[in-house]
Amino acid sequence: MSRSLDFLTEALRRLPGIGPKSAQRMAFHLLQHDREGAAMLSRALYQAVDTVHHCAMCNTFSDTEVCELCADESRERALLCVVETPADQMMIEQTLTYKGLYFVLMGRLSPLDGIGPRDLHLDKLVGRASDGVVEEVVLATNFTNEGEATAHYISEMLKARGLKVSRLARGVPVGGELEYVDAGTIARAMLDRRSA
Amino acid sequence: MSRSLDFLTEALRRLPGIGPKSAQRMAFHLLQHDREGAAMLSRALYQAVDTVHHCAMCNTFSDTEVCELCADESRERALLCVVETPADQMMIEQTLTYKGLYFVLMGRLSPLDGIGPRDLHLDKLVGRASDGVVEEVVLATNFTNEGEATAHYISEMLKARGLKVSRLARGVPVGGELEYVDAGTIARAMLDRRSA
Ligand SMILES: [Zn+2]
Ligand SMILES: [Zn+2]
Repeated sequence: MSRSLDFLTEALRRLPGIGPKSAQRMAFHLLQHDREGAAMLSRALYQAVDTVHHCAMCNTFSDTEVCELCADESRERALLCVVETPADQMMIEQTLTYKGLYFVLMGRLSPLDGIGPRDLHLDKLVGRASDGVVEEVVLATNFTNEGEATAHYISEMLKARGLKVSRLARGVPVGGELEYVDAGTIARAMLDRRSA
Repeated sequence: MSRSLDFLTEALRRLPGIGPKSAQRMAFHLLQHDREGAAMLSRALYQAVDTVHHCAMCNTFSDTEVCELCADESRERALLCVVETPADQMMIEQTLTYKGLYFVLMGRLSPLDGIGPRDLHLDKLVGRASDGVVEEVVLATNFTNEGEATAHYISEMLKARGLKVSRLARGVPVGGELEYVDAGTIARAMLDRRSA
């Protein structure tokens, strides 16, 4: 039909979760109804590949050597919160309860996917946490098996270097009805119960 | 965080069916794991917007003035099959039962979406079907309300110009078990029954 259209359909399949049917539908839509959007997406991709790097301090995506948050003088530099992704970081920022800095792993330990400590650049985290200013590292990886294993590994590594390491509290979610919370969460909430 | 990343996330939302969460996940994935794919998609989009036009004869997407299929001398030029989309055309091609040419509407009449005869460029179809070579126009729009209405409108228009117009047969799908076929299909199959 059209070689350029085939190439576009093929390229759209590089997007996660997009199969051949979806890619075709997207290509048709862009060419028939939104060429302006297609041109804009082309520019955005080019620009992002060209300019987005990893922040030298926190490892998150940044257009500058050090990201805005790390450069913000009003943040507490003695606190370092470790998260798996920029999305997790944004969630914590939205709570407005944390005023320290971050380190973004950009992943988690996942032996099944072949992601080990070296792939996660944990040496960068160790260097960052050992700057002499950081006093406490708060581990905020997910409470999944992989997130827990990642937290455990990092915890051992940093404690061996004399750093104070903490973990987000586990328990029943705010608004959570016990009837609908899984047993593991309730068990953990029971073990971690606090005086009321 | 990163202006380039925000721009990319925004641009990805121009893809049909992609919400804010999916766009973010796609942007992260491309920048973290597949910058080569991102650069390839950027080029594919640019190239497609730049080179994909509509075939002067059949209206489908084409890199050339007249598409390969329309230029193929081995196709029967007296038969013209009208379909809604390039995907529909490909489905018919896969059956290997049709050797004529096509006209691709690139849509359907849809008053609710504000798509009338003028938006579908039906004048282009009339001109194409009236070239003196086409003898029969086979309407292969979908058997949906909108597809049926589109077929009806085109049929009236072309018959008024003395052209022979036919429609794909309706009936029980091959391999269809009556128990699982909807009543409307069975009713139509009964009305259109043929001697066995
Ligand atoms: Zn940073
Ligand atoms: Zn053509």
